[in-house]
Parts: sequence; C-alpha cells; structure tokens
Amino acid sequence: MVWKIPEIIAPCPATRRQALDRQSQLTKPPGSLGRLEDLAVHFASMQGKAKPTLDRVWISVFVADHGIAEERVSAFPQAVTRLMLRNFVQGGAAISVLARHLDALLEVVDLGVVEPLEDCKEIINARAGNGTANFTKQAAMDEGQLLTSLSAGSAAARRAFEYGAEIFLGGEMGIANTTSATAIACALLKVAPDLLVGPGTGLDAVGVAHKSKLIALALDYHTVGLQTPMEILRRLGGFEIAALTGAYLEAASLQLPSLVDGFISSVAALLAVSLQPACLDWLIFAHCSAEPGHRSVLNAMNAQPILNLSMRLGEGSGAAVAIPLLRTACLLHGEMATFIEAGIPTE
Amino acid sequence: MVWKIPEIIAPCPATRRQALDRQSQLTKPPGSLGRLEDLAVHFASMQGKAKPTLDRVWISVFVADHGIAEERVSAFPQAVTRLMLRNFVQGGAAISVLARHLDALLEVVDLGVVEPLEDCKEIINARAGNGTANFTKQAAMDEGQLLTSLSAGSAAARRAFEYGAEIFLGGEMGIANTTSATAIACALLKVAPDLLVGPGTGLDAVGVAHKSKLIALALDYHTVGLQTPMEILRRLGGFEIAALTGAYLEAASLQLPSLVDGFISSVAALLAVSLQPACLDWLIFAHCSAEPGHRSVLNAMNAQPILNLSMRLGEGSGAAVAIPLLRTACLLHGEMATFIEAGIPTE
Repeated sequence: MVWKIPEIIAPCPATRRQALDRQSQLTKPPGSLGRLEDLAVHFASMQGKAKPTLDRVWISVFVADHGIAEERVSAFPQAVTRLMLRNFVQGGAAISVLARHLDALLEVVDLGVVEPLEDCKEIINARAGNGTANFTKQAAMDEGQLLTSLSAGSAAARRAFEYGAEIFLGGEMGIANTTSATAIACALLKVAPDLLVGPGTGLDAVGVAHKSKLIALALDYHTVGLQTPMEILRRLGGFEIAALTGAYLEAASLQLPSLVDGFISSVAALLAVSLQPACLDWLIFAHCSAEPGHRSVLNAMNAQPILNLSMRLGEGSGAAVAIPLLRTACLLHGEMATFIEAGIPTE
Repeated sequence: MVWKIPEIIAPCPATRRQALDRQSQLTKPPGSLGRLEDLAVHFASMQGKAKPTLDRVWISVFVADHGIAEERVSAFPQAVTRLMLRNFVQGGAAISVLARHLDALLEVVDLGVVEPLEDCKEIINARAGNGTANFTKQAAMDEGQLLTSLSAGSAAARRAFEYGAEIFLGGEMGIANTTSATAIACALLKVAPDLLVGPGTGLDAVGVAHKSKLIALALDYHTVGLQTPMEILRRLGGFEIAALTGAYLEAASLQLPSLVDGFISSVAALLAVSLQPACLDWLIFAHCSAEPGHRSVLNAMNAQPILNLSMRLGEGSGAAVAIPLLRTACLLHGEMATFIEAGIPTE
C-alpha cells in the first residue's frame, strides 16, 4: 500500500482567540447565538481570519457501484446508480438543485459504475473498476483499486483548494452503499451489525434483517483481515467511500475544512480520523441522518451535527442544506455591531 | 375588550395532496428529504400552490419596555431596550444583518419603550405607553393598552400581506420580557414557575431563583384574574408580546404563514392558539431555544421546531436563521427532476 497519509496541522489558536474576543463584543447577550457562535469561531481558526467567509463552496459527488448489490440489499436496482449519475450532471438531482442555488461548484466523479456513461463529457473519469466485488465472498477491492480511489479523493480536494474553495463538501451515490458503510462501521467500532444496520433507501424489516445477516457473514469471512482501517476499507468498502476518505484527509492537509454529509460520509470520515486523528479538527458534521447507525458513528468522533432533519438521501445533500447556516454564522460574526459601535454600555 | 379575534380557515387539502403526489415522483427514495418534504408540502397547502415559493419575507420586530424590569430580573439594564431599538434601525443587530442577507423587508415597531427615540424616523410608532406596569403590583396594562398592542400586531400582519409577503416573521425585544413570557406560560399551562423559568439574557442561579419567586408572587397576586388568555395577556404580558399575538392571528386570517422564533414568540403563539385554535395550522416553529421553558411551550402545541442551535437571542433571529432551510425545501420540491423526467424506472 503506497498511499501516503498526509500530515495535518491544527487550526490557528491565535485566530480562534481573536474571534472569541470579537464574539464577546457583539451586541447580544454572550452565547445567545449558540452553535452559530461556535461555528464562526471554528471557521475563523480554520481560515486563519478573524472574520471568516464562505463564498466559495466546492462539492464533489463520488459515484460507484457495489458488488454486494447482487445480494438484494437495496430497495432500488443497481442500474439506478448509473441513471443517477446522469441526473446529477443534468441538474435534476437534489444535490444539483442545491449546488445551483448555493452558487457552489459541483463536480461529478465516476469512481466505477458497472457501465460508464460514455456520452456525458462533464463526468470526471476516476474509475477504479466496474464496481466493487461482493464482499461476502472476497475483498471488495484490490490494493490498486483502493489506491486509485483514495487518490481520486485527494485529487478532488486539491482541485477544490486550487479553485479557492473555503469549504469542501463530499457526496456519494452507489446502490447498496449503506451496506458497505455499515460493515465498515461495525469493523471500526467493533459493534454487531444489528446495532447499526438500517433501511438505507427504504428496505422493510425483512430486508433489514437480511442485510444485517449478510454483514455479519462478511465480518466473519474477513475477520483476520480486518486489523487496520486501511484493510477494513479495502475489504468492505466502496470506491466512493475510499474517495471520500482520501478527500477529507487531503483537504485537512491543505487546511481546507470539509463539511461531512450523512451516514456513509461519516463512515468515510471515521476512517479518515482513524488513519489520522488530526483530521477531526477540519471536519464539520452537517446533520444527523435518519439512518440509525449514524448516531453511533458521530458519537465515536464526539461529533455534534448541526441539523437533525431526518434526511437520508446522501449525494452530499444534507451538507449542502447546512451551508446557508454556516454562511449565516460567518455573516453575523462579521457584520454585527459591537457594543462600542452601537453605543451600548456593557455594565 | 373590543378586539375581535379573526376567523381563520384551514390550509388547502387539495393542494396538499398535489404536493404529496409530486414529492413521491421526485428522484430520491420516498421520504429521504425528511422534514424538508413536510415543510414543502405544508407551504404548498398554505399557499394553495403545488410549487410553493418563499422569495418575499417580511420581518416585524416589536420593541417595548417592561415595568417588571425594576425588580432586577435581567442581566441588562432597562436602558438597553432603547439602545437596541436604534441598533435595529442602524443595521448592527443580529436581525438587521440577517434581514439584509435574506433580502427580507425589516420593520421596527416601537410598542412602548420608556423613552421614545424621537430622531429615528424609520421606527414605526405604535406606542401603547411608556412601558408596562410592574405586574407583581398591578396589571401590566389596561384594556386600552392591550387593544393598542394587539391592533399594532394586526396592522403589521396586514402590511406584510399587502407587501405580498409569503411568510411573516415576528421578533421581539424588551429587557425583562422572558419574565413576562414565563409568567404567561405558567398561567396558560398551569405550571409552577420553577419548571419554566430560565436565565433569559444571562442571569446566574441566584438571579433565576429571584425571577422565579417574583413570578410566583405575581401569579398569586392575580390569581382570580387569570381566567382567560386575554386577561392573562393583559395582566402579565408585554406590549410586544400582545403585538406578536395579534400579528399571528391576523396573518393566519389572511392565509399568510408565520414563522415563530424562540421562547417569547412561542408564548405569544400559545396565546394566539389558545384564543383561536385554527391559528396553529399557519404557524411554523423555527427553532428550540436554550431558554428552558421553550420546550414545554412547544410541546403544549405539539410543535416540532426545525432547528436546535441553542440560540436564545430573540429579535426574530432564530426564525430568520431558518428561512434558508424553508427556501431550500421549496426549491428542492419545485426543481428536482421526477423519475419520468430522469428516465429512471421506479420498479
């Protein structure tokens, strides 16, 4: 395995103090903007600017197919991955609508759907294969495929950085990828599938039980191989999950904050943090998903999601929905009058 | 008492069904946008449009002083009400910053600060007095003052309607008004002050205990007079709380949805709903405040707030912070592709 885990430095403590000081001078009772104050201060320290801004938003959606889909673990057939790939580019998917209204740059990256969309020039080709292998029977990917996927994520983060993005959003799409993500979470957290498994795109109780059984089977099959986060990712992962992991690590090394979406993205974040704990300071967790395993994954990182809207779509949609709140936090921090400016005595 | 409680009709069930039908056709697993789906459908039924919009936002901030402030129930002196009145108009307050970036129309209404700001022409004069009376010793207001305040709220809602607003946001500011709002909530919900009282702008434990004792004293003093919501409002209320109550009722009668802010606004909403239960269908609850009594007030209306950001500022700020989420809900509902448009089979 030759993918080098990047070095990551901490956000700037001096700017953090400056931002905290400014917060205490704004015309409001101290702390009365709650989470919005914390977010503004966090962004200040990450950007090294006492008045942070969030004008330039970058969204990379990573798309791939999963061999495990042949076990009927999703409410939708595998062919939907490819059709959604086109929908992303054509502007009809949720993340496309959101990106448009956020004035965000959206790129769509094919990490390996079963059959590529040759006619869509806008799709970035970073294919690691024609979908992963069925991980109940063999490793989901080989080392070369893992490397390709991680590198595709790093490359996306570097494009965001070069664009001048102030935040990186990763999204994912791939029929059956909650099964892969749940298996990874079980291996990382050493938790039984029953405690994390959920309906994904809409399985019924029988479907969820079947999915749980398959994950247990896979964990058993791979047991001795699941000793490191990298091997857990290779054996149970998806190309798009590996890309997200690579992207979060690379973005953090470039001092570019990432806004983490839902369950699958958070599993990729947990992998990134397991590989390099310093990554955590650069991650903002957008929302708590309706997928039941999400809370456990967030708790494992002491993550406090901003929103709780019972969303469970993926694509980066929950992260995109949170962007206006982050922008609001920065605007209030930057533009509110201080007590002195407003002529209000503080005692 | 001559203020007539307006008639209120229900949102349109046929448009609701149309909007639900559209949601089921959009390119996402059913229900996967969670609360955003419910909000879009609710707005559709309130606007009578299968694709609702939220371009025009109206914010009225109602400002007044409270006689109870002389009992030292706030972390800030009474003079701050007047200074904040100026800050709202000058653009330095949180709600001013928010209104600017939402492209919302913000009006500031003086319901009765102790001393008016004669030099600020932008402030709407709807003064019911030089602040309320100290409600531990007498009724906060007389019947004429209550009528003036309720009518000022109705008038604001009518201005919003005439402007073509698609949503009405009410805000409030008045040193000591959590004491008034808590007393009202205790009387409406028949709950002891200890269970609802909180720090407001930042009281310590001793201050909170003092505040609780004063509220208990007032509830005892007025006992026999607290038989109707209108009398509870008159005896324990504030001019700005009465204005909010009047505004929510009038807006609902005009089929204009209101977005309710935090604790004080929710107490005004509870008054409105107590006076006219049909009002509830026209209220959206923006957030759950850090003020401890808020949850009980929301629960009494079965209200599900959208955000939980530990905000406790008032001014309508929590409601304004939620506007981008409501807009997002409408945009996704209106602009996502259907399965047919995207060529994706649903079975």
